[in-house]
Formats: sequence, structure tokens, C-alpha cells
Amino acid sequence: MPAHPPTAEILAIGNELLLGEVVDTNTAWLCRFFTGLGGKVQRAVVLPDEVEAIAAELQGALRRAPALVFTTGGLGPTEDDRTLAAVAMATGRPLEEHPEALRMVAARYRELAAAGFVAEPDLTPPRRKMAMLPRGAIPLANPVGAAPGVLLPLERTLLVCLPGVPEEMKAIVQSSLAPHLQARLGRAGFAELRLLTDCGDESRLAPLLGEVGRAFPHVYIKSRARAFGPQVRIQIYLSAAAPTPEEAQALVEEAGRHLEGRLAEAGVSAERLPAM
Amino acid sequence: MPAHPPTAEILAIGNELLLGEVVDTNTAWLCRFFTGLGGKVQRAVVLPDEVEAIAAELQGALRRAPALVFTTGGLGPTEDDRTLAAVAMATGRPLEEHPEALRMVAARYRELAAAGFVAEPDLTPPRRKMAMLPRGAIPLANPVGAAPGVLLPLERTLLVCLPGVPEEMKAIVQSSLAPHLQARLGRAGFAELRLLTDCGDESRLAPLLGEVGRAFPHVYIKSRARAFGPQVRIQIYLSAAAPTPEEAQALVEEAGRHLEGRLAEAGVSAERLPAM
Repeated sequence: MPAHPPTAEILAIGNELLLGEVVDTNTAWLCRFFTGLGGKVQRAVVLPDEVEAIAAELQGALRRAPALVFTTGGLGPTEDDRTLAAVAMATGRPLEEHPEALRMVAARYRELAAAGFVAEPDLTPPRRKMAMLPRGAIPLANPVGAAPGVLLPLERTLLVCLPGVPEEMKAIVQSSLAPHLQARLGRAGFAELRLLTDCGDESRLAPLLGEVGRAFPHVYIKSRARAFGPQVRIQIYLSAAAPTPEEAQALVEEAGRHLEGRLAEAGVSAERLPAM
Repeated sequence: MPAHPPTAEILAIGNELLLGEVVDTNTAWLCRFFTGLGGKVQRAVVLPDEVEAIAAELQGALRRAPALVFTTGGLGPTEDDRTLAAVAMATGRPLEEHPEALRMVAARYRELAAAGFVAEPDLTPPRRKMAMLPRGAIPLANPVGAAPGVLLPLERTLLVCLPGVPEEMKAIVQSSLAPHLQARLGRAGFAELRLLTDCGDESRLAPLLGEVGRAFPHVYIKSRARAFGPQVRIQIYLSAAAPTPEEAQALVEEAGRHLEGRLAEAGVSAERLPAM
């Protein structure tokens, strides 16, 4: 069993992050996810697409031996996607074509070609590159994009490499990675919901939030004032962890509907916000 | 003169970041800012409010000797604001009450008390704490909040400690820090502007953007498709660097107005987006 709370580190990889062209929202999502499962993220780093820099950072993280290390970014087909080369360097494992990963990539390009998104489904060298995994790795099916995630069980740490596109990253964590996390952490389900009210008075909402919190003790509920110009509106955040993603989703959904009902009775209107 | 391009590292400090409750937008802004001035951010780290973790990371950064190290967060009045204690530990300099910093903090609380935002203007111990700087440091006036920024010139690196609240962080960089950066980098002014068009066809906008780019060779212009549900709209980003913040603002403003005029002639409507 891992230490309690199990710890994690995150490496967010991509030149676009260090140019500031893209704000890294993946790290915050993984932090909420892992905290929700009862873990503790102790450190996160943003790195350029440079094999040596990534490998050095990975070696440092593996020396500290957290239960998990997540990487995001650098799994795609292009030359500057170098995360797995860095994993190979840091762990001394060769990159090898993984038959199951290759089947995943091939199936995805057949779908994309059938839908007209790509001209042909051929496994060109850049596409095959996405199936070159460090020896001992397990591919994680990507329900949204082409590059599989990669799970590499190491002596003291589970290394999880995820794509940088947020929708792909989240989908892999919540589907393909879930059974592995469940085996290791006892739970793998996490769900969240945000409501934006038209009410600016936190003291008016506090009793309702307290009541819903007591009715759903496994749901985390937090309110926060947000400024919209001179107007202040309270935003409510709900999250839940459970053994499976489906259970977590059902829990947060039930608490959210209950809260929406109580808000409506109190004359407060609330709209759901898109996922962060 | 610093190496070209001058390099920087960023340490974003705060438990709320590693819980995922707050998405760190400061790092991306500092990356755009420093890239805009002709520099290169080589690494960014997110750390908890723990003196030892921050001090160890600072020592690592100072060994790599980038031209600048920025920290954000942990400058406030409370016990868990520990950045300067970590700077003291990492650099072997004691924390001392800085008379000019104390005057800044006192003046701010007199203003806040006069405006009714705080009950009294007294320099309580938590408020005095914000004027305890590492020996040799220069306080940077904070035009928005209470905690001064801190500039510590070290042998090979300029260490800049900034508050975590984005508005305070940006205001200090663009006012109080500007003369110091100008002395070291030759320029300190950076400004940006975002326009969201109602047009989804990048090929239609490309000639206009090319024309404005040729008219304003010192303004960086980039377009990016953004999905709004099934609809795609092109967002245009402009940024400029100049010796001073005022010159950069004037440059990006002039290019922005020129672009807005050309878009209007082409029948494309565009709205300005709030600062990132």
C-alpha cells in the first residue's frame, strides 16, 4: 500500500507553455483530481520540449519516489513530441513498437479516415511513432485523440504519461487509467460541477450550502465570491470522489440537483458553468 | 550584459495551486512578458507554502544562474506567506525590517483605513511582516495591494519576488520593476491585446493580418481558431515590447485600432477581450 496520503508530482511539457501562449490548465485539473482521490500533489514543473531537461526532471522526481508521476504533453506524432524519448532516457528502457498501442493508433486513423478527417488511414512513420513505448509500458486507450496514454509501473512509482490536449488528458484519466488507479489507490472516480449564482451575499447562501453538505457528506462544497465589474456573484464548486468515475459523477450530480432545488426555493438563480 | 537571449525561471508558490483550486495564470503572463522582451523562460515550478521546498528550489535555480528568477505568491501578512523566509534561507541573508518598505505598507494601510476598507491603519505585527526583507533587497511599490514586491540583486541573477494576486503582480512588474529591467535588459515595456472576431475563416483574415504586421513590424500578431460549440471564431492576439510600458501600450493600441479599422472595412466584427 502507498504512504498516506499518496503523493504525486506533475511535469507539464511544451514550449507553448513557456512562451505563455497556452495557460496550463491540465496541472490544476490533475491537482483537483488527485486531491479529490485523497492524495497530495507535492510539486509541479513546466518544461520545454527538450529531452535532456525532461529526463533530468523525471530522474529527480523518481528519486523522491512519489506514488505517481504524471506527465502531460509531448506524446504526438511530430518531431518535437519528445516525452517518451525522455522517459526512455531517464529509466534506461529502450523504446519499442508496442503491438497493442499500434492497434489503437491504427483503429483511430481508420475511424478518422472513414469520417473524412484525414485523407488516408495509413500508418505513416509519424503515426507509428505514437506506438513506440518504453519497454514494460502499458498503453492507455485515448477515447478522444490519436496518441495513447502510457502507463509505466516502476519500482516505487507509477509513471503516467498523458497528452497535452485537455479533453484527451481527462478522458484517458477517467476511462483507461481508472482501473489502474483503483487497484493502487482504492478509488479512481472524480467528478466536479460549478454553479454561478446571481447572488452576491455569501451569508445568505451559507445555510443552504451547509444543509446540502450535511445531506451529502462525501461531496466537497465550496463557495467563492467572483467580481463581475462592480457586481459580485457567488460561484459554488462541488466535487466528489468515489471508487469509479460513474459513481463520482452520480454523486456530484445528485448533490448538484439538490442544491439547485434549494437555491430555486430561496429565489436564487444559478447556471452551470463549463468544466474547468 | 546578460547572455542572449537572457533566461529566466519562475517559481509559483501556494498550496491553493497544488490543490487545483486556483489555476496559475501568473506563470503564463510572466512567460509572455519575458518572451516579449526578448528573453527565454527555461523552466517554471509550482511549490507548496513550505520554506524548505521553496529554498531548495531557489538554490537549484540560482545554481543554473538565469538572468532573472521570478517568484509569485507568499508575500502577504499571514503565517503561511513564507516566500521571503525561503529567500533568506536560500541566500544566507537575514530578514530585516526595511524602512522604505515599512513606509510603503504604512501608507497603504492609511489609505485603506481612510477609505473604510480596514478598521484602523495601525502597523500590526502581520502588517509589519510585509516589510521584513532579506538584507540587500529593494522594495518594489505595489500600486494595487499592500505587500511590496522585492528585488534582490545577486551575483549572477536578479531575484524578483511578486505577490500572487495577478493584478498586483502585473502592476508591480509594469511600474516599479520597469526601470530595473530596462537597466538590465534594455527594455521593460510589454503590452498585449486580444480581439475576438465573428469570422471563422482564417484564410480570409490572413491577408489583413499580414498587412497590419508589415505596417507594425514591432508588433507580434497571431491568430488562433477557437471553438464555441459547433461554431469556430478566430481570435487575434497582438503584443509589443518597447523600452517603456507606455511605449509598448501605445504601439499595441495603434496596431489594434488599425487592425480594427481594416476588419470593419472587410465586414468582420471584432470585440476586445479582457486581459489574460
